Amino acid sequence: MSRRVRLVHLDEDSDEDNNIRRSASGPPGSHPTDFNIPLTDDSSDPADPAFRTARPPKKEPSQYESLDYDVCENVLWRRDQTKIEPKFTVRKDFARWVISFQIGVCTALVACCINIAIEEVSRVKYGFLKQQVDRNVIHGDLSIPYLYWALTNLVPVVIGSTLVAYVEPVAAGSGIPQVKCYLNGVKVPRIVRIKTLAVKAVGVATSVIGGLAGGKEGPMIHSGAVIAAGISQGKSTTFRRDLKVLQYFRDDHEKRDFVVGGAAAGVAAAFGAPIGGTLFSLEEAASFWNQALIWRTFFASIISSFTLNIILSAYHGLSSFRYRGLFNLGEFEPLPFDYFELPIFMLMGVVGGCSGALWNAVNRRLNMFRAHAIRPRWAKVLEAAFVAVIGATFACLMAYTINDCRPLGNDPTEHPVQLFCQDNEYNAAAALWFQTPEATVKALFHDPPGSHQLLTLIVFVAIYYPLSCVTYGLSVSLGIFIPTLLIGAAWGRLTGTLIIMGFPASSAFVSPGKYALIGAAAQLGGVVRMTLSLSVIILETTGNIGFILPIILTLMAAKWSGDYFNEGIYDSQIRMSRVPMLPWHVEPEFQQLSARSIMAQPVVCVRVEEKVQYLLDILKNTTHNGFPVVEDGDDVSVRDSGDDDDDDDDVHKTLGYYRSVIGSRVNGRVIGLILRSQLVVILKRSFYQESSRFWESTVNIEAFRDEYPRYPAVGDLHVSEDKLSGDFTVNMSIFMNPSPHSVEEGTSVPRLFQLFRALGLRHLIVVSVENRVRGIITRKDFLKHL
Amino acid sequence: MSRRVRLVHLDEDSDEDNNIRRSASGPPGSHPTDFNIPLTDDSSDPADPAFRTARPPKKEPSQYESLDYDVCENVLWRRDQTKIEPKFTVRKDFARWVISFQIGVCTALVACCINIAIEEVSRVKYGFLKQQVDRNVIHGDLSIPYLYWALTNLVPVVIGSTLVAYVEPVAAGSGIPQVKCYLNGVKVPRIVRIKTLAVKAVGVATSVIGGLAGGKEGPMIHSGAVIAAGISQGKSTTFRRDLKVLQYFRDDHEKRDFVVGGAAAGVAAAFGAPIGGTLFSLEEAASFWNQALIWRTFFASIISSFTLNIILSAYHGLSSFRYRGLFNLGEFEPLPFDYFELPIFMLMGVVGGCSGALWNAVNRRLNMFRAHAIRPRWAKVLEAAFVAVIGATFACLMAYTINDCRPLGNDPTEHPVQLFCQDNEYNAAAALWFQTPEATVKALFHDPPGSHQLLTLIVFVAIYYPLSCVTYGLSVSLGIFIPTLLIGAAWGRLTGTLIIMGFPASSAFVSPGKYALIGAAAQLGGVVRMTLSLSVIILETTGNIGFILPIILTLMAAKWSGDYFNEGIYDSQIRMSRVPMLPWHVEPEFQQLSARSIMAQPVVCVRVEEKVQYLLDILKNTTHNGFPVVEDGDDVSVRDSGDDDDDDDDVHKTLGYYRSVIGSRVNGRVIGLILRSQLVVILKRSFYQESSRFWESTVNIEAFRDEYPRYPAVGDLHVSEDKLSGDFTVNMSIFMNPSPHSVEEGTSVPRLFQLFRALGLRHLIVVSVENRVRGIITRKDFLKHL
Repeated sequence: MSRRVRLVHLDEDSDEDNNIRRSASGPPGSHPTDFNIPLTDDSSDPADPAFRTARPPKKEPSQYESLDYDVCENVLWRRDQTKIEPKFTVRKDFARWVISFQIGVCTALVACCINIAIEEVSRVKYGFLKQQVDRNVIHGDLSIPYLYWALTNLVPVVIGSTLVAYVEPVAAGSGIPQVKCYLNGVKVPRIVRIKTLAVKAVGVATSVIGGLAGGKEGPMIHSGAVIAAGISQGKSTTFRRDLKVLQYFRDDHEKRDFVVGGAAAGVAAAFGAPIGGTLFSLEEAASFWNQALIWRTFFASIISSFTLNIILSAYHGLSSFRYRGLFNLGEFEPLPFDYFELPIFMLMGVVGGCSGALWNAVNRRLNMFRAHAIRPRWAKVLEAAFVAVIGATFACLMAYTINDCRPLGNDPTEHPVQLFCQDNEYNAAAALWFQTPEATVKALFHDPPGSHQLLTLIVFVAIYYPLSCVTYGLSVSLGIFIPTLLIGAAWGRLTGTLIIMGFPASSAFVSPGKYALIGAAAQLGGVVRMTLSLSVIILETTGNIGFILPIILTLMAAKWSGDYFNEGIYDSQIRMSRVPMLPWHVEPEFQQLSARSIMAQPVVCVRVEEKVQYLLDILKNTTHNGFPVVEDGDDVSVRDSGDDDDDDDDVHKTLGYYRSVIGSRVNGRVIGLILRSQLVVILKRSFYQESSRFWESTVNIEAFRDEYPRYPAVGDLHVSEDKLSGDFTVNMSIFMNPSPHSVEEGTSVPRLFQLFRALGLRHLIVVSVENRVRGIITRKDFLKHL
Repeated sequence: MSRRVRLVHLDEDSDEDNNIRRSASGPPGSHPTDFNIPLTDDSSDPADPAFRTARPPKKEPSQYESLDYDVCENVLWRRDQTKIEPKFTVRKDFARWVISFQIGVCTALVACCINIAIEEVSRVKYGFLKQQVDRNVIHGDLSIPYLYWALTNLVPVVIGSTLVAYVEPVAAGSGIPQVKCYLNGVKVPRIVRIKTLAVKAVGVATSVIGGLAGGKEGPMIHSGAVIAAGISQGKSTTFRRDLKVLQYFRDDHEKRDFVVGGAAAGVAAAFGAPIGGTLFSLEEAASFWNQALIWRTFFASIISSFTLNIILSAYHGLSSFRYRGLFNLGEFEPLPFDYFELPIFMLMGVVGGCSGALWNAVNRRLNMFRAHAIRPRWAKVLEAAFVAVIGATFACLMAYTINDCRPLGNDPTEHPVQLFCQDNEYNAAAALWFQTPEATVKALFHDPPGSHQLLTLIVFVAIYYPLSCVTYGLSVSLGIFIPTLLIGAAWGRLTGTLIIMGFPASSAFVSPGKYALIGAAAQLGGVVRMTLSLSVIILETTGNIGFILPIILTLMAAKWSGDYFNEGIYDSQIRMSRVPMLPWHVEPEFQQLSARSIMAQPVVCVRVEEKVQYLLDILKNTTHNGFPVVEDGDDVSVRDSGDDDDDDDDVHKTLGYYRSVIGSRVNGRVIGLILRSQLVVILKRSFYQESSRFWESTVNIEAFRDEYPRYPAVGDLHVSEDKLSGDFTVNMSIFMNPSPHSVEEGTSVPRLFQLFRALGLRHLIVVSVENRVRGIITRKDFLKHL
């Protein structure tokens, strides 16, 4: 172990430019299992980054790797391609459509289950609480209902939080940042496992039932992604089952393409926004716009929205088909607007942008503090429980103190509580809390003008704003859309009401509902800062195309003003967790550099015919994931590296070893690239030879697909001693990617970046004019903060 | 002249694999000036493709070149980049937004002008015709109104057609295929000139006024593209003005990015569909998804839609702001649908797909015939005039023979004619013709059930279907959206009416208007086969999000069934005109090939220090647009090529020359790429030297920008004899692109294609493992039909 550590250290010492090849060593201090708590963790010793790459996570892996989106077109792959009949190509294509269909259906099913569970339990919960309030308010004593409320919040939240903290921490939060990273090409560990889905689903249901300030929409996108990954692979690690189907989809490229569809289906299910979902996925996946992929993604979205609509409509008695998504804003009557309102809307956008930026900043600080202060799992559960009780407390206080009485009849809630109001009246302040947040958003949009006192709205925003800010980042699964919309809708409605009060003549066209919608869009735009896709999602959710101009202007104003202060919440989360997600543009500091100045070197290369001993050696002693294959040059003697757990402490000897072994190969001309995962499989399956090529007929691409995606660890490889000491070699020529992308060392970084981003690369070899290896560039080399 | 010809021929003879480097020689027989008439033309002698590349079009250039979307990051460019202050970067970025704003406003202005002109003149025209009909129908004599009708059709059409045929043939048709090609990276000659815009605008107005079966929507997209190109460049060739502003946007990359915005603004203006427009542009531009570009494109679209709304609303009296686009389907009341209707809609989609495929096939045949048979310009004008009269004839016949009388009152047209109906009645058959096609589409969507006899609709489809098919391809500017929608709406309404007749119980939910909408979507999907963007455009035009599922299912069914027979009309047009537009996927025949088998070779290379004589020589004797720059290798003697117009007929001598000159340089290692356009400017500005580098301080990137986009022709270069005979050389190192994209010769074609498409390349150098030039690949090498 110590030598590996030293290797990394040595590199750092020996290179003035700090351009050390650290592609696989990962960001020290990152802790990928909990997206929100990245800064420190006991297990993330910065001096211990090695040997985690291709090992199944016995303990938590501490780094993010790139997906191999670039197809490795090696001899095996080509053989597989030529072997297949045209019929098979058709079948494969057909299978893609069938899988897309299944993704749509399953995503909708999961969404329906979560939705129905939340709805039913919430109905019982709030019915019971109303009963308690009605019974106890007579004595003026609200402590009993308060205790019940706190308890009914506490129990589900503790269940959900325990699940997340102990079973699958990656299921915390909305999952959108993780999905964004995955689509960007980063392998976030365990993000698309079935176990994660299970925890997520239960976690979301319990959080919403527990009355936390969160929604179920964001997690649906994550759920869709997991479902897509699961269905497309035909096997599950969680259940240790391999259905032996769809083996041809077992690579990162195909899998990510399905996940694109899954995420879109998730958005479609959550918001009834198939077009918005497709745009979201495409925007995040960000590679080459592939028409067939777009169609399949769109198809999955449509099917998802459609299935959800049928199931929920059937569940609600088939009276009408209007459940396009889990969340819809209800039917707006046509929303006319006058052009002189547009500046008001844009001003509201600016307010939303600033308010969103503040929210993001506070949330970021809070989560940084949390990462330091709240580290044991039980503390996380305790924290969530505490926030749940706080929520109930504030809700009770607000209902208790504000006497906003409205006549019964046009009730905005299923459980109007009377509290201290007259008979035939209900308390409008309590009504905001006596239902799920989704229902409250709808109420704010659609309640007739004058349904709430100004004070009610002000206090509500004042409570909900910090509450939601504290909630996002807890060890629970929930999304951020609904609380954000809720805050925005409340202050938007407030604005509308104020305008009517200030200019009574304006009541002809100013409706509080319209301003609630604009406020919601502004706040959401200020927090998430998504672009085109968010406009389309809101548009589809509103169902009112005539209102597109106000919404878009509001969103643009919100984005621009928010961007002045900081970045969107998802991007900020991603940056905090140190995931190497590639941005849209190369960072300004890198604008004037060339490949030479960001590449990592020296590069560990392998020759076409390479000794087994050497391969085992570099796998064990480096953490790199890709090795350029070079032409046979001079024959250099490989130093005998001895045993694996040889605790040789001589730093200089190790450095000498490193240099001598690597350096001799660097002079060869690049003719290919081989991945760590491939080498591991080659060694495991003994695809090496002394002189005869006895195994060549038996090796095929299936051997590699069978191991995907969790390749064995180097330590688990058992290569017999005689194979090591003998002259057994591996012939790379049929395994390596024969046409890796390479660039000349003078190429500018923006140019490299474009290549990297557009093709979804993992490794980019930097070569000299003579095509000799000079360095290698990976995703992390573009990010200054890593 | 003869030698150049021979060079190409020799290549063909000497290469067995038919892998001749023909990158600049263009498809023989193509004639880009008229998109619809590609097959033969006197000027397109297949043996005369040379020397047209970089010459300003004295006569019509006969080939399509690629745009240089790849930024040439040479020393000059880098110098320019480092020189600029951060302030300048901000200013440049700000300028981009300002230009996007201007693009939106100007596109809307042009759209409004066209629209108002058409509206006003049409009102006068149909008012006059109605008067004539009313006056003459008393005698039962319709010949006078018929003659008037024919005349009022004839005159505008002849004007428009003459303009198109004699002034700017590239303005014919809808312009969408040309814009698609441009966005795809093909330089379609004169496509983005102001003259083209003028002809297009007048042409569209006259065509629609002349009653041709076409719309003004497609041409708006082209107009937007021209406006974008014009505004962003700050100079105009048509007006020979150079405003000396925005010089930093003078390259293909920046220009295309603005054209993306312009095309989107065009769609936004035409259909009031800013999201659809953005999607359309992105889908066609198809490169890397660039967030900043998306926002600007979206911004231009919004501004365009917004401006148009304000102007048209103001023009119509400020009563309401509902002119989101030139074309809108009017306000639909909420469109409920039942799930059992979906199969019907999909069936209608299939019908639309088949009917669209038939339309495409017939139109294609017709235009192929036209290309052979109707070649003189006067014949084209005559043909257009003939079709205009035919239209009037059929309309008259239909109005005369079908006695579809409806009570006045709820008039679907501004000029209801009575004809042979009772007083207080109007003729519904005539009403379909007595207005612009847009108004007829709206009438079919919104007229109450029972507004038309079945026979009226059947006859209308029977007339309009072939009429529109004949019309598209005439030498006039008009689009295809409206006639297609019209046909679809008519048969859709027919279907709805038939269903109600067959199942009277269904009249509760089956409305003919709804079926007209589905029919229109089906027919449009069947003809154009656009994907996501069309769905969004229709959705935005309808303004009814609840109806998204039926529309999408219909479009999918239409696309799939249509694709079974042939390709969409735009793609079919592009294929016919032999434009080297890259498809979405590499053609199946190329799937198994490698770079080696599609690359062109031998490659003409230049050395870093190259003699002026040699450069002039290769510019004159080849048609290539890019020359790999190779390291100085052996010094080979350049054969003295003598005079330019030396009519040496010895074929073998020429071949020998070619081989000896080229062959010696091919052995060098690739270190850059220089474009023909750059060499021309270098020679023109005398950026060459004997020993001192006296010019180095004076040369900057402005020299190249000044000449963009119409570089001087080689023949116009005047290099003095002493410079030629002396040892004057050009030092490429500061001009060449120092990091051209290159691939190893074994790389598979699908991989190359992805690289090419994702990065928008023009040249891809194929190299050996030692980085020596082996061949070169351009856009045309991926297309088997070229």
